[in-house]
Amino acid sequence: MELDHIGVAVADLAGAAARWRPLLGAPSGAPEEVRGQGVRVAFLSAGSVHVELLEAVRPDSPVGRFVAKRGEGLHHLAFRVPSVDAALSDLIRRGEPVVDRNARPGARGRKVGFAQPAAFGGVLVEFVEGP
Amino acid sequence: MELDHIGVAVADLAGAAARWRPLLGAPSGAPEEVRGQGVRVAFLSAGSVHVELLEAVRPDSPVGRFVAKRGEGLHHLAFRVPSVDAALSDLIRRGEPVVDRNARPGARGRKVGFAQPAAFGGVLVEFVEGP
Repeated sequence: MELDHIGVAVADLAGAAARWRPLLGAPSGAPEEVRGQGVRVAFLSAGSVHVELLEAVRPDSPVGRFVAKRGEGLHHLAFRVPSVDAALSDLIRRGEPVVDRNARPGARGRKVGFAQPAAFGGVLVEFVEGP
Repeated sequence: MELDHIGVAVADLAGAAARWRPLLGAPSGAPEEVRGQGVRVAFLSAGSVHVELLEAVRPDSPVGRFVAKRGEGLHHLAFRVPSVDAALSDLIRRGEPVVDRNARPGARGRKVGFAQPAAFGGVLVEFVEGP
């Protein structure tokens, strides 16, 4: 299964983009708000994968709570799958805990779904639908 | 700059490999001990990048302390560079904090070097020398 991106929780999207620019260059587009997740995001290219910077738009969003509790840092891994619903169903069938039982809208117009960190030894895993 | 791998701190290498197998398949080789870092590691393929599982071989190693403090989870991002020494020198010249001032031996016979997490907003960044 291919890695799509690594999510990094940040306190300030513009400041974080400036910090990563010497390594990864400028974001590939304007920041985008993902309403369902309470974040504004920007994507930086790192070869065939991306680094997604996530800034909370409300303190009670998952990323807002993450930064308040643990500080800025690595947040999740996202893998590309042909069907997010099928990937989530497979986890549920194996008795693994999930955040989403069905795909929902994510950044860049893609369907996404999250497992719970306990399903992968403390790593929050996202599935992103795509070729 | 291309991503080489994502480091994941785990309590038990064999258990973690079993947990990731449905997504990423079996490790690409036998576990390897990296003495300088006090870890045993295994690499799982995720498209053009790898997930590196890291198990501490001593509780006072960096990964051992990480797991004791924060639990298992995402640990570092590693980027491929033509020269680790040059990448570290560039950070030092920009006034960013580094763990290593010079390259040292890492897994898979490669030269590596680490920045401090403060250099990239809480993300521990490793440079790996390679094409």
